[in-house]
Amino acid sequence: MIHLFTDFGLEGPYLGEMAAVLRRAAPEIPVVNLMADAPAFAPRPAAYLLTALAERLELGDVLLGVVDPGVGSERRPVAVEADRRWFVGPDNGLFELVARRAAVVRGFVIAWRPSQLSASFHGRDLFAPVAACLARGGTDGLRPEALTRFPDWPDDLAEIVYVDRYGNAMTGLRAASLPRDAVLLAAGRRLVHAPTFSAVQPGDPFWYANSSGLAEIAARDASAAALVGLGVGTAVGVVLR
Amino acid sequence: MIHLFTDFGLEGPYLGEMAAVLRRAAPEIPVVNLMADAPAFAPRPAAYLLTALAERLELGDVLLGVVDPGVGSERRPVAVEADRRWFVGPDNGLFELVARRAAVVRGFVIAWRPSQLSASFHGRDLFAPVAACLARGGTDGLRPEALTRFPDWPDDLAEIVYVDRYGNAMTGLRAASLPRDAVLLAAGRRLVHAPTFSAVQPGDPFWYANSSGLAEIAARDASAAALVGLGVGTAVGVVLR
Amino acid sequence: MIHLFTDFGLEGPYLGEMAAVLRRAAPEIPVVNLMADAPAFAPRPAAYLLTALAERLELGDVLLGVVDPGVGSERRPVAVEADRRWFVGPDNGLFELVARRAAVVRGFVIAWRPSQLSASFHGRDLFAPVAACLARGGTDGLRPEALTRFPDWPDDLAEIVYVDRYGNAMTGLRAASLPRDAVLLAAGRRLVHAPTFSAVQPGDPFWYANSSGLAEIAARDASAAALVGLGVGTAVGVVLR
Repeated sequence: MIHLFTDFGLEGPYLGEMAAVLRRAAPEIPVVNLMADAPAFAPRPAAYLLTALAERLELGDVLLGVVDPGVGSERRPVAVEADRRWFVGPDNGLFELVARRAAVVRGFVIAWRPSQLSASFHGRDLFAPVAACLARGGTDGLRPEALTRFPDWPDDLAEIVYVDRYGNAMTGLRAASLPRDAVLLAAGRRLVHAPTFSAVQPGDPFWYANSSGLAEIAARDASAAALVGLGVGTAVGVVLR
Repeated sequence: MIHLFTDFGLEGPYLGEMAAVLRRAAPEIPVVNLMADAPAFAPRPAAYLLTALAERLELGDVLLGVVDPGVGSERRPVAVEADRRWFVGPDNGLFELVARRAAVVRGFVIAWRPSQLSASFHGRDLFAPVAACLARGGTDGLRPEALTRFPDWPDDLAEIVYVDRYGNAMTGLRAASLPRDAVLLAAGRRLVHAPTFSAVQPGDPFWYANSSGLAEIAARDASAAALVGLGVGTAVGVVLR
Repeated sequence: MIHLFTDFGLEGPYLGEMAAVLRRAAPEIPVVNLMADAPAFAPRPAAYLLTALAERLELGDVLLGVVDPGVGSERRPVAVEADRRWFVGPDNGLFELVARRAAVVRGFVIAWRPSQLSASFHGRDLFAPVAACLARGGTDGLRPEALTRFPDWPDDLAEIVYVDRYGNAMTGLRAASLPRDAVLLAAGRRLVHAPTFSAVQPGDPFWYANSSGLAEIAARDASAAALVGLGVGTAVGVVLR
């Protein structure tokens, strides 16, 4: 299975053109659009979100990840094999947490170039053909080479990394790293843990372990983002009792 | 074929994660995203919309319906077989009209539980695996049991149940239940019937039988919702001559 | 492969219902949603965008194009074979540029009618079954007949035809038709060429050859549409040195 993780948005021809390349090159491989509204041009928060979602990948799966503000510049195109899942995209930290958390990691630079490479759409022209090849078991055009690493990035990111359409605000903190009596601080507000929406009163913001394993700030029947004042990048404090 | 009908929105990872489960469990079954912007947290209007769209299901098809404000509470997960189409989702009335209008109905509670069940995402963890199983002809983990019924809900709902991006406002009234000279009243405005957009003057709101068989309030080259003042939940009156 | 090009938007049941017809009639043919936000009700700008995207179609591919303000009126449903790619949709100019630029073109009227034809959704009821048939190699229900032609439409359209979510504004001008030292004029602003985003300073609008071969007005780390004041239909001047 090939999973798409991009900041392309759902509008316009971008996702469709990339999907067409994948379906053409690997018609027997299912393609799933995991998300198209990853933090735009922001590989750092995107990396924490990507890694949480990648927990559900299975052996041989490929995640095609494109959050790529440097497209057209000198940043390298790479592939990463992490515990026998593949990740394809730009060498800008998007796969830093995947690489850091995996038991067995191998980095590759994509040496192959298509006959036509647009300056602005490597997702379609470069990454998609490589992702299709990897999903079919090939490793053509890859050259073993160390990824650029980002050792100063934390293991968990105490920031909002995504706000969904209902105003639920995901942090870059793994919920399993927090005791249940931890209090989160965000935008001047104290947020205690609740197991799920139905356990709190309407309008009361709280935090809980979301379905991707991240600590998420939510409110019942209300937008926590609007209520508390949260957006991608808002800092989150953690108070341990 | 598996049809998705949810209020998840198209953004975020929710649809993609659910699709990944379906494609993994039933790779040979096509999955179609019927709509992801069903009335949010509102099973009652959603039920009328779902039932209209479900007219196009064929024998053996499965509709995975998730409009589920009670996720994480005690509401039961259910499956409904209605005239040999399957419906999977929460027991909150979402399938009330499907059940009411079908000639042969059987209700089931989903007794099966996955090894990992998140508190907030039963669409992915519980309903999708069951939908995939049903689409392949299995009925594992289902226990015959009566659905919760909603006898006070009307057979047709005289309210707006959906407004599309062009401002066309669908009611919960089956067009076939209305004579062509019926007048609809909404937000203080009288709306007469026209067969289609090209039969009226630009800017004139009217009602017509839409492509799902519902009475829909529309305007040529304009947003009927903006023009008349309509949103999900707006009451609609019916004047029969 | 079947490519969808519509102004339906991603919301609502429209894309899903059309995809369901295609998957049912031609389960072995991949369906890709190329774009659902083509210029609404505007076949002329849509035609230039469609033609640029259609460059990537391969032999035997089908593009189902629906930008159809005249649905329900007397406009004819047509199919066009252009250099062995098929195009299916309304006879309103949407395929004018495809036909004009192809070496070998054949026009057909769709004489077939389904048993149930809604007044407002020919994409689902009429065009999708024909597209599925063509994708499988059939030409049932087509009658050779000349398309309506639009000889007064220019070969390249000096207007904005699409603005993406990041504010990049595509023109209807093929980049290959412009020398690299051409200056574009739009909304009172002079825009010079740059090869790609990373070649300019943040906030400086410029034009470049986008990944579909169109001249596109963009700005690094900013919305060119907001910065310059561009929308679909904005006129663009070309100054050749």
